[in-house]
Amino acid sequence: MPHIGMKELARRLNVSTATISKALRDSYDISDETKQKVLQLAKELNYTPNAHASSLRAKRSQTLAVVIPEVADSFFAQVINGVEAMAQSDGFHVLVYLTHEQLEKERAILKELSNGRVDGILISVTSQTTHADHIQELVTAGIPIVFFDRIFEHIGKGEVTTNDYQASYQLTQHLIEEGCQKIAFLLFSDALSITKKRLTGYEDALKQHGLHVYDKNIITCTDVPLENERRIRQLLGRKNRPDGIIASVEKLITSAYLACQAQGLHIPKDIKIAAFSNLATASILSPPITTVTQPAYEMGQAASSILIKAIHGKFLDKEDLKMMIPSKLDIRKSTMK
Amino acid sequence: MPHIGMKELARRLNVSTATISKALRDSYDISDETKQKVLQLAKELNYTPNAHASSLRAKRSQTLAVVIPEVADSFFAQVINGVEAMAQSDGFHVLVYLTHEQLEKERAILKELSNGRVDGILISVTSQTTHADHIQELVTAGIPIVFFDRIFEHIGKGEVTTNDYQASYQLTQHLIEEGCQKIAFLLFSDALSITKKRLTGYEDALKQHGLHVYDKNIITCTDVPLENERRIRQLLGRKNRPDGIIASVEKLITSAYLACQAQGLHIPKDIKIAAFSNLATASILSPPITTVTQPAYEMGQAASSILIKAIHGKFLDKEDLKMMIPSKLDIRKSTMK
Repeated sequence: MPHIGMKELARRLNVSTATISKALRDSYDISDETKQKVLQLAKELNYTPNAHASSLRAKRSQTLAVVIPEVADSFFAQVINGVEAMAQSDGFHVLVYLTHEQLEKERAILKELSNGRVDGILISVTSQTTHADHIQELVTAGIPIVFFDRIFEHIGKGEVTTNDYQASYQLTQHLIEEGCQKIAFLLFSDALSITKKRLTGYEDALKQHGLHVYDKNIITCTDVPLENERRIRQLLGRKNRPDGIIASVEKLITSAYLACQAQGLHIPKDIKIAAFSNLATASILSPPITTVTQPAYEMGQAASSILIKAIHGKFLDKEDLKMMIPSKLDIRKSTMK
Repeated sequence: MPHIGMKELARRLNVSTATISKALRDSYDISDETKQKVLQLAKELNYTPNAHASSLRAKRSQTLAVVIPEVADSFFAQVINGVEAMAQSDGFHVLVYLTHEQLEKERAILKELSNGRVDGILISVTSQTTHADHIQELVTAGIPIVFFDRIFEHIGKGEVTTNDYQASYQLTQHLIEEGCQKIAFLLFSDALSITKKRLTGYEDALKQHGLHVYDKNIITCTDVPLENERRIRQLLGRKNRPDGIIASVEKLITSAYLACQAQGLHIPKDIKIAAFSNLATASILSPPITTVTQPAYEMGQAASSILIKAIHGKFLDKEDLKMMIPSKLDIRKSTMK
């Protein structure tokens, strides 16, 4: 009996070879009915894939890249843990790339990754990333990309986020309920999608409770802790100083606490502080800090799982394309009356 | 003029082709004198490397692997930052593998890495790694390995450590000077090289100050925070309870603080606490915690730099083979009189 190839299967079922190939790869382009037919015929005719073609088809690096701004941050560290757990169980290796919040680095890294080194990319963009041409190039080249946390909408295979707007609204409301009237908002870069959402949640909560949004209560910080402490001290030294602070990024917590100390302000008596953070030490700070705790590990797992599905050409359902895992408000002493 | 190859260079200098090859690669096996001779002759005869041989020789993946127990720990996160900064500047990619403290995972990861996926490996072994056969296999296969922090002596290309013994001795002495007489020592696994050194430093400091070493003051913890808190509470509930605690790993800090709170013990009045840690929040804990701060970033940079030298076949000097970067004792309120 001659070797039965995909051409023969295609001829007998009166479909194209591409259809046979996709059906055998379990591609989501092909209906389940057609897949069934192809698989049944392949079995009947004892079809075995051409070794060369099969190796080409399977020529994957079995490697994922995770491109993140930094690793010394409990959110990203826990995301990596989640990604890694999922990837390892599916036989994938994980490459970690750090952009250090620099668009130029992100660009260089993605350029490097366009050569087939990885099968797919998980990315949380830098705070300088205001357009996505360099990411779009990889998408065009057919490399699956899944965004998490800091996303660009509509260009990746999927997006995994948390409810930044609602969590920020809820946190701001909590501070108002605890008696704060003048709440400051510390941010790192207002170019970031998540920062915008957190800022809007904060502003909307103020407005809905009849409070004004003052631009001078919104402080942009740097990546130099001492400079941040100086800016927060300046904020707290004002005549009409805030009675509450929301740190929209974890690394601003230490600067905010030290600034309050330096100004002789007692937390939470004189000023209440809360932050977006996954710090393991949140409960033993002086005082324990109220946090919006993000589902970092779960976000890493979900993003990785969606990416691996995309790499295998599997069908991505609506939830995969736009997945939202809610954060949790952990109220601690730093915001109590 | 016929093409001048390595054989011709070898014939004219009366050495082996291997010597020529190594000299051209700047290998440390070859004396500087011989290298000079080879390079000069190669220049005179206008030697150009055989393209195929050269591509084989240069067939590197330009990738390093970092194999670590976990990433949600400020020490390892900062090490990755250091590794990554050095690697990126030398055009290397960084693969991060997590063993989750499991020997089986470490073994599986290293097996995977034996196939040429990476040019070299940086490793800090798991707490279960009591023998190094699986690492020795890679060394035998010619893959350069550099150990950092948690090392196996004499089998890698290099070792980067900090002064665990001295730092622990100095920290214990500090607690004694602040009035502690009964100091407990919390550890994660006494199989680890670094834990042994820290434990010995602690024991020696006690003895040299005329204090007894009590086995029941040495507590082995788990990776379950609540169980650790329970064990520490039990320790603190004893009639002759400790008046000082050294946490030899960062992740035991939160459990130790919470256990003291639960027992109604004031830090530092009733009990003093210190830890080996790189926590960014050390200074805003309640109270700020005295730490042995390890040179994590510098250790990552150094290990990466030594590994890249080894990959390039460069000469490794004595300092590279056994590099020690000292830790710093940061005294804060948790241990003050």
